Amino acid sequence: MTTPSDASLSRLFNPGSIAVVGASATAGKIGAMPVSLLRQHGYDGRILPINPRADVIQGLPAAPDLSALDGDVDLVILAVPAAHAAQALERARPGQVGGAVVFTSGFSETGASGVHMQEQLCAIARERGIRLLGPNCLGFMNVRRNVYATFSPAPANGAVAAGGIGMVSQSGAFGAYAYCMARDRGLGLSHWISTGNEADIDVADCIEWLARDADTRVIMAYMEGCRDGAKLRRALAAARDAGKPVVVTKIGRTQAGAQAAASHTAALAGDDAVYDALFRQYGALRARTIEEFFNLGYALDTWKQRPQGKRLGIFTISGGVGALMADDAEDAGLSLPEPDALAQARLLERVPFAGPRNPIDVTGQVVSEPGLLLATADDMLADGRYDALAVFLAAAGSSDTLWPTFETFAREMRSHHPNVPLAICALFPPDRRRELERLGTLVFVDPSAAIRTIGAVANLADKNVAGQTAADPSDAAPAATSITKIFDTYNEVQAMEVLRLAGIPVPDCTLATDADTAVAAAARASGPVVLKVVSPDILHKSDVGGVKLNLHGEDAVRRGHAAILDSVRSHCPDARIDGVLVAPMAPKGVECIVGVHGDPVFGPVVMFGLGGVFVEVLKDVSFRLAPFDRTQAMAMIREIKGYALLQGARGTPPCDIGALADALAALSQFAHAHRDDFSSIEINPLLALPEGQGALALDAVLIPNAARACGRSASS
Amino acid sequence: MTTPSDASLSRLFNPGSIAVVGASATAGKIGAMPVSLLRQHGYDGRILPINPRADVIQGLPAAPDLSALDGDVDLVILAVPAAHAAQALERARPGQVGGAVVFTSGFSETGASGVHMQEQLCAIARERGIRLLGPNCLGFMNVRRNVYATFSPAPANGAVAAGGIGMVSQSGAFGAYAYCMARDRGLGLSHWISTGNEADIDVADCIEWLARDADTRVIMAYMEGCRDGAKLRRALAAARDAGKPVVVTKIGRTQAGAQAAASHTAALAGDDAVYDALFRQYGALRARTIEEFFNLGYALDTWKQRPQGKRLGIFTISGGVGALMADDAEDAGLSLPEPDALAQARLLERVPFAGPRNPIDVTGQVVSEPGLLLATADDMLADGRYDALAVFLAAAGSSDTLWPTFETFAREMRSHHPNVPLAICALFPPDRRRELERLGTLVFVDPSAAIRTIGAVANLADKNVAGQTAADPSDAAPAATSITKIFDTYNEVQAMEVLRLAGIPVPDCTLATDADTAVAAAARASGPVVLKVVSPDILHKSDVGGVKLNLHGEDAVRRGHAAILDSVRSHCPDARIDGVLVAPMAPKGVECIVGVHGDPVFGPVVMFGLGGVFVEVLKDVSFRLAPFDRTQAMAMIREIKGYALLQGARGTPPCDIGALADALAALSQFAHAHRDDFSSIEINPLLALPEGQGALALDAVLIPNAARACGRSASS
Repeated sequence: MTTPSDASLSRLFNPGSIAVVGASATAGKIGAMPVSLLRQHGYDGRILPINPRADVIQGLPAAPDLSALDGDVDLVILAVPAAHAAQALERARPGQVGGAVVFTSGFSETGASGVHMQEQLCAIARERGIRLLGPNCLGFMNVRRNVYATFSPAPANGAVAAGGIGMVSQSGAFGAYAYCMARDRGLGLSHWISTGNEADIDVADCIEWLARDADTRVIMAYMEGCRDGAKLRRALAAARDAGKPVVVTKIGRTQAGAQAAASHTAALAGDDAVYDALFRQYGALRARTIEEFFNLGYALDTWKQRPQGKRLGIFTISGGVGALMADDAEDAGLSLPEPDALAQARLLERVPFAGPRNPIDVTGQVVSEPGLLLATADDMLADGRYDALAVFLAAAGSSDTLWPTFETFAREMRSHHPNVPLAICALFPPDRRRELERLGTLVFVDPSAAIRTIGAVANLADKNVAGQTAADPSDAAPAATSITKIFDTYNEVQAMEVLRLAGIPVPDCTLATDADTAVAAAARASGPVVLKVVSPDILHKSDVGGVKLNLHGEDAVRRGHAAILDSVRSHCPDARIDGVLVAPMAPKGVECIVGVHGDPVFGPVVMFGLGGVFVEVLKDVSFRLAPFDRTQAMAMIREIKGYALLQGARGTPPCDIGALADALAALSQFAHAHRDDFSSIEINPLLALPEGQGALALDAVLIPNAARACGRSASS
Repeated sequence: MTTPSDASLSRLFNPGSIAVVGASATAGKIGAMPVSLLRQHGYDGRILPINPRADVIQGLPAAPDLSALDGDVDLVILAVPAAHAAQALERARPGQVGGAVVFTSGFSETGASGVHMQEQLCAIARERGIRLLGPNCLGFMNVRRNVYATFSPAPANGAVAAGGIGMVSQSGAFGAYAYCMARDRGLGLSHWISTGNEADIDVADCIEWLARDADTRVIMAYMEGCRDGAKLRRALAAARDAGKPVVVTKIGRTQAGAQAAASHTAALAGDDAVYDALFRQYGALRARTIEEFFNLGYALDTWKQRPQGKRLGIFTISGGVGALMADDAEDAGLSLPEPDALAQARLLERVPFAGPRNPIDVTGQVVSEPGLLLATADDMLADGRYDALAVFLAAAGSSDTLWPTFETFAREMRSHHPNVPLAICALFPPDRRRELERLGTLVFVDPSAAIRTIGAVANLADKNVAGQTAADPSDAAPAATSITKIFDTYNEVQAMEVLRLAGIPVPDCTLATDADTAVAAAARASGPVVLKVVSPDILHKSDVGGVKLNLHGEDAVRRGHAAILDSVRSHCPDARIDGVLVAPMAPKGVECIVGVHGDPVFGPVVMFGLGGVFVEVLKDVSFRLAPFDRTQAMAMIREIKGYALLQGARGTPPCDIGALADALAALSQFAHAHRDDFSSIEINPLLALPEGQGALALDAVLIPNAARACGRSASS
């Protein structure tokens, strides 16, 4: 499916003609680079140098400006100083130019006057229907089409191979470094794009376009922040739906990093935990380091088939390194099932002192008996119990004698077990490494990096399932609003009523305005009740005698009701009293805290954690962007470190985690539908009851959106 | 200082003469390899081939067996089948042979009969005063002396450079791989040793010997387990005292890894948490991956000066990557102080759009103005506020034009700021990387790896201080025992008395055998008291009415005493009652749990954690080997994730952490002095009181060592 934005980006990234404004004949000049790169790499479209002071540039006829060109131009490269950029673009006729890449710096990154210049540039481009990449960017390359719309010196030192990775980087420096690393590691790129100041096209646009680009199988993205959360969600959803994994590096994970990022981007980069939730939610793989970024891209590009689950086979010629890899597997969330009995028996027959379990240790015997390699792997994999295989060959990888064995092994593995992706850890010379990679085998020096990479990629199998069932905001129609009135403030009875309407289980509460009502409400409850004063003026009810617990029978309730009113009136004579809340005593359960806050970029974000020290001291919480479904809710519950407590640690029975997940999902749907009505919601505690008994929200604080509530009360 | 063990190992690792039993003329044979390697690399001592079936081997005269040799031999290499190894060694005269390296496999690693053969071999060696390396090992290399007592093919594919790293590996495969990695990464080795089955010489022996070896500056060790904990502690202490950092990889961090390690080493590798504590305690750097192992070795070998603290300067040509590095710095525990105002002003004068804080972003401007590099660094470092500097050059590192700038930068940095170790992150060709390394500069491709490495090495600065003040077990004389009698069991009053003698603050408790005593004890307390029944037959005192809290005055105490006895007698008519404990009500504080258990390899190990979910659900605990001092105790308290709670989270005042540390240290000294008396001690809770108010042990369970207690009661 092609959207209008798609078509305009396709014209820009896949141009049939390129005009270079500021084209130069002087090698090394910013305006000389694209012309020479395009010619050097054999770009087959038209190259149109624009320079008012020359008739011929690098052997090509030059025009004085865009208006002097006969026909349309798909792409204009602006390589002139900031002050002249807008002027140059102004010469284009509406519809004449598809897109412009603006190398020039000196725009919004330099302060107020730069911001103004950038706005002018954008306005001129908009008027003429021109999409804009940059300014202050290194441009882009369409590797297959030999489009070098860049002044980065990186491709001049050697071009990257054409391949299936679409790479997009907000930062030019990071992008150029990544380009060189891709080249050095033999990764093949479809497109390389730097977005710079993102006056128009941003990383999200590029991800979405790459998700639809036929040449791209894997997307690698570097970003510093995002101004349009909905667009980024749409882009990640498009990639997910196209089955194209996204590897993303986003800076600002920590306080120090976020501070540095904010000072660099001159804007708050937003709460990193929300980005993290976003990436989890859409199955994007977040890389914390450049090394990890590349390992993930490398695996996704090299493997023709990704692991379909988390069952790893490890097979080494060193029991010790096998154990090291088992450590890494546990860290990476991979399981290590034993081979079946027959496979173990056959291995022990061949090598009596082998380690026949997983990790399998065939011992150094493989050096004198190379056939062991394939025979053992065939036996291990015969009954389909592994989703991936990692092999450690120690120093034997450097052996000339053994190379044919290893090459045959990789080749035969591919034909015998095409569904089991293979990683080999050894020190191969570069050409041999490339040869194995051509056979679809990953090669790592560090076995731990291999296992971590396998673990992360295997996560995609899970995440995609979760992702496909996730409720995307676009799917969630602005539901028939279940609450028709937004108050300025909510007392706890009103707040609980809102939760009930949102589909979250709450106790059967009554706000009693007199003793008889309280007694009647208590009579309806099947067990003892709690009474609490309800007043907008009293925060700490217990301190003023405003709470009575565990009351049985009419007398106790009546006495309790009177005692509360007496005590409160004597402590706080001026407090407005809405009444006394009557509720059944809460059953035993694990106290959870659920919160919703509005993120300025991504809208309502739901937080989940356990009560007490977990949230307050350990900050042990997980996040998801609203709305989401039960599957995502389950994932966010499992993510917290204190999860064991919900499974029934410390002698308590396991909790009804399903009911908890339903409550979270319901809250997320409600928060999304009412995203303009509330600035925050906190349920504390949300009680997780024993399995089969559900969950129960015991108290909640709702803060209406000030603007909205004011608006309403003004109009009412 | 040379110990006898030192001297015998020096003779083995630094031999003037080497006999090769099973020497062969056939290339590739296990007995041919050492002879050819020794000759090829120009070993300058005597090489004595032993082979009863040849007169000349590889051009050297051969003897039929050891007894046929005229004089003494420093080193014998045994390259004959297991069945012949003992026999071959038997031919040596006592004192004739210094040490033997046994390549042969088929010993203890293969089962019972192999264990027996290995014992025979050891007995023969012992009788003749021969130190044994192996069996089932790849031997060793003394790189500087060209001693190649190995059959590993690794050095045949290219020798490693001579340098300051002493490398020892229990696993031959890991060792060979590490050798090749060291060669490929340009690391220089002094010695390379594989210990195999460790029938005599183990990794600890080698660490201790390398700690005294003049050629070794850094020790890199790989181990799977340890049988002699005291020796390993001694070895790590020797390295620490010699100022030689130890980088160690030990397998079995996780459950999966420990299981694999156990099945590989055919013995329980011991509790990994104890090894982890050991390494922390002695300032050894534990590497979790081979990559990390090498990065640490690389940094320690290349830097002439290590960071003396944790203040890192970051300086990049990309603000985004700077932020990424700031993330890594925070993860690594490094601080990022801002440069002083003058340095910031000078940078902004040069580059108006630079990021003048730390991370400093000089922007791509450095490409056109290379002098910025040194000028900025000089300004940053002028007032000594950084302990290390990390520089990211993006793709500029690949530029031929800029290379002279970078080379000059590294050279000048070394002369201007010799005390500030430098790491550069860029993609240099190998020869340029080597050139920078020769100037003492680290070079990394991945900036995150650079920061992690700097962080780990900077930790040494702290740890060495801690280490040097740590009480080593050898320092702790088996103190005049403060308790003279070890009981079969301890009731809580007796347990608290033991703690008091150990120097741990306990409340003033009285075991009252009648009401009057209880009343008198309560009168001595300044506030309300708690009464608790003391009985070896009652575990859950509260359930049988055996506890009364918060009693004021004689009447209340007398009534409480009677009520307890009544209730307990009615619930448990057969229970033996030792009396009723009278104690002051405990003040408010944070509940901690402290435990001591006896590790079979390392002796008493002290555990520290916070009460409640922290220990039980989150397993949030830290360990140290007893005995240790206050500094170590402080470190172990700071290590737990819930540490914030002790600093005064959740509205509670900060705790008296110093008093807590004193209690931990005192317990560790006591546990060490009485290591044969108790199998476990648990103080739960140890109350951390507000600052200035100390700590207080409220309850303790002491389990005497069964053997010891029985022995005593039998003799008493």
